[in-house]
Amino acid sequence: MNTIEVCFTPAIYDRFHKDDSIVVIVDILRATSSICTAFFNGAKKIIPVATLEEAKMYKEKGFIVAAERDGIKKDFADFGNSPFNFTKENVEGKEIVYSTTNGTQCIFKAKNAYKVVVGSYLNLTVLEKFLCKEEKDIVILCAGWKDKFSLEDTLFCGALSERLLNYEKFYTVCDSVHASIDLWKVAKNNIMDYIEKAAQRHRLKKNNLDDVIEYCHTIDAAPSLPLLENYYLINAIS
Amino acid sequence: MNTIEVCFTPAIYDRFHKDDSIVVIVDILRATSSICTAFFNGAKKIIPVATLEEAKMYKEKGFIVAAERDGIKKDFADFGNSPFNFTKENVEGKEIVYSTTNGTQCIFKAKNAYKVVVGSYLNLTVLEKFLCKEEKDIVILCAGWKDKFSLEDTLFCGALSERLLNYEKFYTVCDSVHASIDLWKVAKNNIMDYIEKAAQRHRLKKNNLDDVIEYCHTIDAAPSLPLLENYYLINAIS
Repeated sequence: MNTIEVCFTPAIYDRFHKDDSIVVIVDILRATSSICTAFFNGAKKIIPVATLEEAKMYKEKGFIVAAERDGIKKDFADFGNSPFNFTKENVEGKEIVYSTTNGTQCIFKAKNAYKVVVGSYLNLTVLEKFLCKEEKDIVILCAGWKDKFSLEDTLFCGALSERLLNYEKFYTVCDSVHASIDLWKVAKNNIMDYIEKAAQRHRLKKNNLDDVIEYCHTIDAAPSLPLLENYYLINAIS
Repeated sequence: MNTIEVCFTPAIYDRFHKDDSIVVIVDILRATSSICTAFFNGAKKIIPVATLEEAKMYKEKGFIVAAERDGIKKDFADFGNSPFNFTKENVEGKEIVYSTTNGTQCIFKAKNAYKVVVGSYLNLTVLEKFLCKEEKDIVILCAGWKDKFSLEDTLFCGALSERLLNYEKFYTVCDSVHASIDLWKVAKNNIMDYIEKAAQRHRLKKNNLDDVIEYCHTIDAAPSLPLLENYYLINAIS
């Protein structure tokens, strides 16, 4: 039997860390949705970097760079954080350096876990199958917003946990898993309405960046399996 | 207009702190339920202390000391963390020193806020009326369990937020408030069943300490208004 836990904020990830767990990074609006999209569209590697300084350094070395803070694309970057930027034309066969407010920083928090993968609605079924094949405990780590709880990440935790708990091999004694599943049950039949409650939905709207909301909640729209290998992500889909 | 926010873990309280907010400390099973009970039964002062060393020092000076870790009463203490310990006989007119795993430590995290009060189902209406009279933003701070999210504290946040948002003067843009209210709506008609999901419910059961669950979820059973004044709590009920 393997456990499922949900960690609502990277600030307390150390309370959940186990060397032999698989960590699923979640930042639905928009980093992990964008990463799944990039790999679905043929990106070769994604190099997540925590700071803008690093992102700039890579840019100067000729890399393609996606970088944003608080939703807004940085001037020096090739593009920002919308999954719609990560088109086949922009990413196929390429190595992309990527830095965002919350999501990419989160990936490094978990780097000492057994494996780190990236999750979103866009690769939900791929992720479910992968996690079932491995015989490991699972921590679903929400990027949140500047260490705070986020509804959209939590709903996804519920969607994924609900699926995993259908398998006999998984169980949970984690209050955050129960909360996520119950919130997902409230929201799932009308997710576009429910997501109106999320602060991030309004942050994006304010900056005219909310064209991605529906896409980012479309199950299996970009099947891929972003997996951390050393300091970069590859697509481990089999 | 004043905001309501919910902070699910003391680990990120600094993200919520504002000098002019009122902070409501919540540790339903069992610290804040016990504190409300103690004042309802006539306690004069409660001195929350973070460490067992401090609690022991007070004991040596002749104070009455309530102290537990992980649910279990410490040998040197007069009693532990059950609200049923804080009887009229034990507490009336007395100053009690109190140290618990999560709740009492939480109180000090918030000590620089405008006011710090203690909340539980037992003083829900008193609390609601107090918060409505003050013209301040509100942060509801969950003690949780060793920095992790706890269902029973979250449900109370939902119960309190739902009441406050009935007043026009309060609004929220906090995802944790929305999540708390939606979980409370799922749970409220059958709270004793729902609470079976909570890890803390099972921790208490394991140690035969779960006789308090129903009492700790009884609305207005111990009307009192524990308020932090300097380094101790008093009953500020008017």
